Amino acid sequence: MRTPPPFAPVQAPWQLSERASALTSSAIREILKVTERPEMISFAGGLPSPEGFPVEVIQRAFAEVLATRGKSALQYGPTEGYGPLREWVAHRLTKAGAKLSGQDVLIVSGSQQGLDLLGKVLIDPKSKVLVETPSYLGALQSFSLYQPTFRSVPSDEQGLLPEALDAELAGGARFLYALPNFQNPSGRTLPLERRRALLDAAARHHFPVIEDDPYGELRYRGSPVPGLLALSEDSGATVIHLGSFSKVLAPGLRLGYIVAPHALVAKLAQAKQATDLHTATLTQMAVYEIVKGGFLETHLPGICALYQHQCSVMLEALAEHCPAGVSWSRPDGGMFIWVTLPAGLDSSALLEEALREEVAFVPGAPFYAEAGARNTLRLSFVTVPEARIREGIARLGALFARRIRQESAHAA
Amino acid sequence: MRTPPPFAPVQAPWQLSERASALTSSAIREILKVTERPEMISFAGGLPSPEGFPVEVIQRAFAEVLATRGKSALQYGPTEGYGPLREWVAHRLTKAGAKLSGQDVLIVSGSQQGLDLLGKVLIDPKSKVLVETPSYLGALQSFSLYQPTFRSVPSDEQGLLPEALDAELAGGARFLYALPNFQNPSGRTLPLERRRALLDAAARHHFPVIEDDPYGELRYRGSPVPGLLALSEDSGATVIHLGSFSKVLAPGLRLGYIVAPHALVAKLAQAKQATDLHTATLTQMAVYEIVKGGFLETHLPGICALYQHQCSVMLEALAEHCPAGVSWSRPDGGMFIWVTLPAGLDSSALLEEALREEVAFVPGAPFYAEAGARNTLRLSFVTVPEARIREGIARLGALFARRIRQESAHAA
Repeated sequence: MRTPPPFAPVQAPWQLSERASALTSSAIREILKVTERPEMISFAGGLPSPEGFPVEVIQRAFAEVLATRGKSALQYGPTEGYGPLREWVAHRLTKAGAKLSGQDVLIVSGSQQGLDLLGKVLIDPKSKVLVETPSYLGALQSFSLYQPTFRSVPSDEQGLLPEALDAELAGGARFLYALPNFQNPSGRTLPLERRRALLDAAARHHFPVIEDDPYGELRYRGSPVPGLLALSEDSGATVIHLGSFSKVLAPGLRLGYIVAPHALVAKLAQAKQATDLHTATLTQMAVYEIVKGGFLETHLPGICALYQHQCSVMLEALAEHCPAGVSWSRPDGGMFIWVTLPAGLDSSALLEEALREEVAFVPGAPFYAEAGARNTLRLSFVTVPEARIREGIARLGALFARRIRQESAHAA
Repeated sequence: MRTPPPFAPVQAPWQLSERASALTSSAIREILKVTERPEMISFAGGLPSPEGFPVEVIQRAFAEVLATRGKSALQYGPTEGYGPLREWVAHRLTKAGAKLSGQDVLIVSGSQQGLDLLGKVLIDPKSKVLVETPSYLGALQSFSLYQPTFRSVPSDEQGLLPEALDAELAGGARFLYALPNFQNPSGRTLPLERRRALLDAAARHHFPVIEDDPYGELRYRGSPVPGLLALSEDSGATVIHLGSFSKVLAPGLRLGYIVAPHALVAKLAQAKQATDLHTATLTQMAVYEIVKGGFLETHLPGICALYQHQCSVMLEALAEHCPAGVSWSRPDGGMFIWVTLPAGLDSSALLEEALREEVAFVPGAPFYAEAGARNTLRLSFVTVPEARIREGIARLGALFARRIRQESAHAA
């Protein structure tokens, strides 16, 4: 470890930027550190299930690419991404109702990088940025580096309320950021009529909408709702779409994409060039090798069946063990359930007790850009074995019940 | 392609950030677009030679990792990087004279990402940043996104002049950025005594030095000069070291590292988490599999021999074909030769003529943060076959001679 010299000057050897001084480690990251013990039943993670990783298929694809096109797979490549993969993304989204060419697609190193590039290109200090309540914590962190002023869009259990997007709230916004499908953290899905109304508001107030959709293909109940990108075709609204291979193939590959009008793709590519030159050529070629023949169509039903089962086990356990006054979302897909406790309970304080009983979750407050509901929490069901889901929820339910009794005794 | 709706509002559908409005495509990138035709003899690229990519070794490593640890290689991983690879980097640099642990190492997605993270964490708008004259274009672009004020450190043919780093120039600088070994673009190497003097100035004026060292292991002539990181141990100066696997294994993997005091690594990791969560786990594990047994020690001599041969062919051709008044660097390693034409000649104007004769190079001006020497240009020798190096330099030499004659006729 490098230690300071014995007579180091009092002055620090470097000065942090204003944005770096404001950076803190994510609340989730800190919780995850204490949940790594094997005894802990952790609903705090956001990891997809490794049961769903097609390891052998990925192994064959890397071997095939290296054996047949090794030298080009290992050379520098274009910043915009590997052409055939860009075309594949455009074609897949066109089948879902958008009208795209490969030029509208920028390949990125995971959709988290998409968030960073969009922040770089669209946010100045104090720019107004509209977010859902709650919103994805990783996006709030990413945008925060560019020092925007977040404005929260009011929501209910079905998602954001488009009628709230009046001139006062929406005027001059650089963009609205939304996760319409099985949102992280709430699990909720924005209904079709609200999607249409959101796009009308976006066209009327001239703000683009960023549609972050990592979970859209993980639907295990109900019918798909058309995406904002597809719906935007006739709306006059601009939609920037973020997609990811993390939840449909494997997150350790770090591969995602941004879809945007190609003038904006060109600007995002300039920013990406300065940021990391391009995403790994080998990874792009291997993933294209996997998906080009329709692999996802046969692979996704298995993941959806697994997640549906895990989700229903947790929903049953919640119904069995939670006391009156506690409610929770019933997601149609994705990885998360959102729990709302009676008003006045603070889930951060509850977490300390839960950790002592070897159960972990993520408190809801960090998911709000502004002061949020402290009586909420996020549960992930995908990586925990069935029996441990039941045991963990039983412990949480008992803890909720105890706290609710204490609160009412205190109030009486 | 997504076209605007027929009655699109006059107002643009998005507003770019100030930093994005200032972004332009790299001069090199634009030149490379016109040099892709097979007839073109291009000395403009900065690509390493694919002859040096150990394709089969890389193929075996990916296969091994996926076969034995596939699920963990494909899962999300820690932002700081894969532990054994961090330890390997620390150990390798410790052998070279630094004293490090794995905690001082942050794995990044290519050292270009290292530059972006350092810009994020250390630069505020108008922060003073010290750079060499000339400097690496990709670093200037990367830092520019954070809107610093660049100050150029005077230099000669051996590199920067440490005695120029007085309080006026160096006071309050956020950092000095330097490529001490076989610099891109100049090919020059900073002598030992200047390295020591630079570190003294850094300690005296309290600025950290960023040592970017992608080419350091590509020495094919002379003896290695100790790196700034190793020399900093007793100097009281803070050195942040950037390394890369792009030139010693393959650039398409996108893998590099930042070495810094671990308090700064922690802050850089927070920024990286918001930027792209982490670098691909699979790639890190595969590269560790390759390097852990000492592969680079047997692999690098072959690359160095290849580059030495390519370099000497170009140096011979320059001596044979260049008219009096033209000078060039004689690098001891790396990939680039820097040519200086008589004062008054503009290499950007010359490039247009050269392209008509199917030869390409990169003009020197974009490598200067402030107004630079327009009579300079960069040549890369690594990917062009020997006969075409001779032919291309013959055409350039004739062109230089013609221009010099025209200039003197004009002046007479």
